[in-house]
Amino acid sequence: MLDVVALQGDVTAIADSINAVWVLMVTFLIFFMQPGFALLEAGQVRAKNAGNVVMKNMTDWSMGVLVFFIVGAGVSAMAGMLGSPGEALSVSSAFAHINDPTAWIGWLFGAVFAMTAATIVSGAIAERMKFGAYVAYAFVLVAVLYPVVSGSTWGGTGLLSSTGYLGQALGVGYKDFAGATVVHAMGGIAGLTAAYMVGPRKGRFDSNGDAQPIPGHSVLFAVIGTLILAFGWYGFNVGTQATVLTADGSFNSALLGRVALNTTLAMGAGMVFSSLTTTLWEGKPDPLFGANGLLAGLVAITGACVHVSWWGALVIGIIGGIQTPFVYRWVVDSLKVDDVCGVFAVHGSAGFIGTMLIPFFDVAGFSVNQLIMQVAGSAFIGTFTVLGTMVTLLVVDAVIGLRVSDAAEAEGLDPSEHGMHAYPEFTDDGGAERAVAD
Amino acid sequence: MLDVVALQGDVTAIADSINAVWVLMVTFLIFFMQPGFALLEAGQVRAKNAGNVVMKNMTDWSMGVLVFFIVGAGVSAMAGMLGSPGEALSVSSAFAHINDPTAWIGWLFGAVFAMTAATIVSGAIAERMKFGAYVAYAFVLVAVLYPVVSGSTWGGTGLLSSTGYLGQALGVGYKDFAGATVVHAMGGIAGLTAAYMVGPRKGRFDSNGDAQPIPGHSVLFAVIGTLILAFGWYGFNVGTQATVLTADGSFNSALLGRVALNTTLAMGAGMVFSSLTTTLWEGKPDPLFGANGLLAGLVAITGACVHVSWWGALVIGIIGGIQTPFVYRWVVDSLKVDDVCGVFAVHGSAGFIGTMLIPFFDVAGFSVNQLIMQVAGSAFIGTFTVLGTMVTLLVVDAVIGLRVSDAAEAEGLDPSEHGMHAYPEFTDDGGAERAVAD
Amino acid sequence: MLDVVALQGDVTAIADSINAVWVLMVTFLIFFMQPGFALLEAGQVRAKNAGNVVMKNMTDWSMGVLVFFIVGAGVSAMAGMLGSPGEALSVSSAFAHINDPTAWIGWLFGAVFAMTAATIVSGAIAERMKFGAYVAYAFVLVAVLYPVVSGSTWGGTGLLSSTGYLGQALGVGYKDFAGATVVHAMGGIAGLTAAYMVGPRKGRFDSNGDAQPIPGHSVLFAVIGTLILAFGWYGFNVGTQATVLTADGSFNSALLGRVALNTTLAMGAGMVFSSLTTTLWEGKPDPLFGANGLLAGLVAITGACVHVSWWGALVIGIIGGIQTPFVYRWVVDSLKVDDVCGVFAVHGSAGFIGTMLIPFFDVAGFSVNQLIMQVAGSAFIGTFTVLGTMVTLLVVDAVIGLRVSDAAEAEGLDPSEHGMHAYPEFTDDGGAERAVAD
Repeated sequence: MLDVVALQGDVTAIADSINAVWVLMVTFLIFFMQPGFALLEAGQVRAKNAGNVVMKNMTDWSMGVLVFFIVGAGVSAMAGMLGSPGEALSVSSAFAHINDPTAWIGWLFGAVFAMTAATIVSGAIAERMKFGAYVAYAFVLVAVLYPVVSGSTWGGTGLLSSTGYLGQALGVGYKDFAGATVVHAMGGIAGLTAAYMVGPRKGRFDSNGDAQPIPGHSVLFAVIGTLILAFGWYGFNVGTQATVLTADGSFNSALLGRVALNTTLAMGAGMVFSSLTTTLWEGKPDPLFGANGLLAGLVAITGACVHVSWWGALVIGIIGGIQTPFVYRWVVDSLKVDDVCGVFAVHGSAGFIGTMLIPFFDVAGFSVNQLIMQVAGSAFIGTFTVLGTMVTLLVVDAVIGLRVSDAAEAEGLDPSEHGMHAYPEFTDDGGAERAVAD
Repeated sequence: MLDVVALQGDVTAIADSINAVWVLMVTFLIFFMQPGFALLEAGQVRAKNAGNVVMKNMTDWSMGVLVFFIVGAGVSAMAGMLGSPGEALSVSSAFAHINDPTAWIGWLFGAVFAMTAATIVSGAIAERMKFGAYVAYAFVLVAVLYPVVSGSTWGGTGLLSSTGYLGQALGVGYKDFAGATVVHAMGGIAGLTAAYMVGPRKGRFDSNGDAQPIPGHSVLFAVIGTLILAFGWYGFNVGTQATVLTADGSFNSALLGRVALNTTLAMGAGMVFSSLTTTLWEGKPDPLFGANGLLAGLVAITGACVHVSWWGALVIGIIGGIQTPFVYRWVVDSLKVDDVCGVFAVHGSAGFIGTMLIPFFDVAGFSVNQLIMQVAGSAFIGTFTVLGTMVTLLVVDAVIGLRVSDAAEAEGLDPSEHGMHAYPEFTDDGGAERAVAD
Repeated sequence: MLDVVALQGDVTAIADSINAVWVLMVTFLIFFMQPGFALLEAGQVRAKNAGNVVMKNMTDWSMGVLVFFIVGAGVSAMAGMLGSPGEALSVSSAFAHINDPTAWIGWLFGAVFAMTAATIVSGAIAERMKFGAYVAYAFVLVAVLYPVVSGSTWGGTGLLSSTGYLGQALGVGYKDFAGATVVHAMGGIAGLTAAYMVGPRKGRFDSNGDAQPIPGHSVLFAVIGTLILAFGWYGFNVGTQATVLTADGSFNSALLGRVALNTTLAMGAGMVFSSLTTTLWEGKPDPLFGANGLLAGLVAITGACVHVSWWGALVIGIIGGIQTPFVYRWVVDSLKVDDVCGVFAVHGSAGFIGTMLIPFFDVAGFSVNQLIMQVAGSAFIGTFTVLGTMVTLLVVDAVIGLRVSDAAEAEGLDPSEHGMHAYPEFTDDGGAERAVAD
């Protein structure tokens, strides 16, 4: 019988090993969303700002992981502790990951989600925000804003969990499987807020207040970035089903299959129905809106993918795709906000809508309390993010200012903020001297 | 003894879990071939059609997965049922995957192969086919044409399987491990047929019928796309060895190793020997043919990789590489077909040749019946695809027309079909208004 | 009891299977560094040489895998055998992998490391070395130079192993976990040597010997290439912890976690501190140095990641980042060597420094003998590589010459070496006829 006992131990180690291989690989895929965002955003700005965009992307990742290891992950754990009646706050426990090597795979898995939220914002405020102001905001987002949101939702005992203050009142926890609101809508509404506060680019609205197009320099880059993001998204969504083999030896076939299928169908539906919408509207299918619709379909299903039926995923993807051009025009024409890459339409509204639709397509059946929780949780995340972003940017504005000078904006942020040109052979001032870089 | 019985169950669940992690990851890699194809094809067209190319790529994937879930996978299963004497057709069984979550990982693994076949065609008919006509054809390919081919080959009891009508007569099944003909040659010969039917681009042949070069706008993009495809191809080939651990606990080390090595050697040999061929021919090694030779080496080994010796893989890769420029010139100069990205030379002839060479290098030994089956199976796939493509395109031509107007072709498909410019700062009409996209 | 014995067999097969899935996936990630290097290097050269750069990258991979299978892997094994007293040289054993399918996964895992070393060199000698000369050098590197270095270090009984001549004298083996020196510094110092021997590009130094900037044609490509490399690097470093589950059923959680965290922190620190350095130096953060600092942080931690504490990884990353612009300027201004992509600063000095710092942050504690071994091993690798590169290039120079003509350099290597233009629509001579490629 001793040998059989030894076997029981083996099954746990085997399950841990299989799940670790899976989690590490999907973590790498989610990291790979960084160049996806860099291409998507760079393609949607003018060539004179392309270097600034990719510098912001590299910096929010690079600075972000340091801050999230030292500060953010612990803040997230504390936010989780504070959300339930009777939970004690333990700072040492919240920061225990720092000295526990067996916690580091899990930390990295959390970090790539945090950095995704951070990088979304840069697409909204492109082409006019100071590099230093953006970095300061990204610091606060990674250290405090995202951790509070993620800890409140996913932190076990957080405010929106089933044992949190709100969850106990309603009898259900907030459902957002892989972060449609925790990561994407959080980044999308932060981007909208930041774009409002920094103001529109020169020339984006004419003297009558009517929007004027400022096309990005490469639709090709935007589309390739989109497809890279879709690749990484399989890690994001399917990988959130992190347990492939349970500790007692059972294979999570149906859960993995559901997430994989729903992610695929919503992505496809988002792209097709966004394109059909622009075809009806403009007479022609627009590749950039096709790409953004594909992403909006992915965002919309990100919270729902493990919960809903396949035809529910299809409907959620369709709605995510159709709303993209409408919300984009509403932000520009009604709110008069210059959200350069449309991050609110793609990540914000799509994330909130998809998450609030979960109860209607839930394979566990409809629950009115669940619907109330979905609305309340989305409202909490949205309100906290807007307020946190406004306060942060007011402070940053007072200390270093949010916006580059008009002359710098006209010249481009590449020469003014970084002393370089992204494409020196294809633009005028290619030979600009760079003292270090030569 | 009860505990030991429980263990037997564990081994199956463990094997299923390990294989699921593997299959999911390689499925994601194969999906990632989509941006590879987008870059490869976009780089080989002029800048004025780059947006159209990537729009086609996004659409065939996005529409394709919806169609393949609802229609194509079931058609493939039915095609598999119809190929053997005594097999009954069961529609409900063919479409059972739709309501079975445990079948969805397997469905997605099949879907990424189907979408690879679809996207190959777009490279052949670039720069002049109507967007709507291409989408209509891609719909039929994903719903019917590819499913019939894949079901006949891989469907267990399909026509070309060892139990099918043909297989029983010859005593052997058709060997195409990962789809050299089922996916690649199918896409390649469909592309050739479609390029023939839509006719050459204006200016591709002069008044004497001599071919004139129309260089693509970025060899860099074509090469990067090629290397992305090679990355995805490791998923395509090695991942087709989907069982890493068998249900009775044995590790498929040698099979995985053989596929991985043979894929690598044929890729290397295809690139080196295609480059040597253009060096002997032109005096200089051509990067675009180097890239296409690398891909042709991969295509040629795709069906053979699990079957042949390592030196057989080397020979197959060498032949795949050398034939690429010759077949390309033959298509252009003799057939007078304008296959823009050379998809017949890269995916078509390379796939057929590599698959028919299997018996000569098979580690199981040479078999004349196997050789007959390889020729017969290739002939079936080629003939069915050509006829199916011709019929489909005749109908599409009658209903909506295959080709844009001469004026639209001259202006570029980006403005005419999509109302946009891929690189507005690098081309003339960059400021074109887009009502929705701004 | 028979059933329980069968189980023991199962655990080994299960561990082998889990580890094989892991090793195959990380191998594919490391392969994907090839397009990362292609973009990084192409972005740092002028448009007229972009095709040549990617042709070199495709060729060193494609030719390299053939050579490494037939020659290099066996030479590496022989080098490992020769390093210890009493070890017998067995050629048949050294080349046994060629006919052993169960060795082929391991061979491919080794091959992607070898090809990384090869491709680094091309970045140093870009824009003026003959294509044929580079290919000849890459052949020797893959067949002999890299195998001697890797076999001496990782070959079990190699010179620098704990049982080697040097290791026995010092009582410790050389520590370079994933190849900071074996792969990166080897490639970096080979690049520096080759750049010295081929001489600077025309115009890189003026008549006073002062360096003049020659900006590359796309900082965007360089940054995207960098982020692709970082993605692949997770495979490179974390994947070198190739045993996830041991044969006796224990899960290597802490080792995997340490490598993953340390890689992430050093990458982030390298980017942030390289950017801070250029900000202090020039007043503005430079994206290209940010990218190169990110890579230098990765290189610096590559040998150390499994050995050092997290704060040690942070310090190593910081040093890797800060040294990048200083070493780059020293190479240009003091050595007067035209290392186009700064491969010595990024891969060479960063690799040597990071590896020699291991003893100071080793979780196993400081050891003076270990420090001596780190210095001695780095000196051996550096010296052997410099001498091997010089001898090889002297022979190549005598036989075919190292450098293109001044006219070819001025025209660009794309037309002169390959008869093509990477971007025919964006440069002057876009319509150049290509006989085969049309």
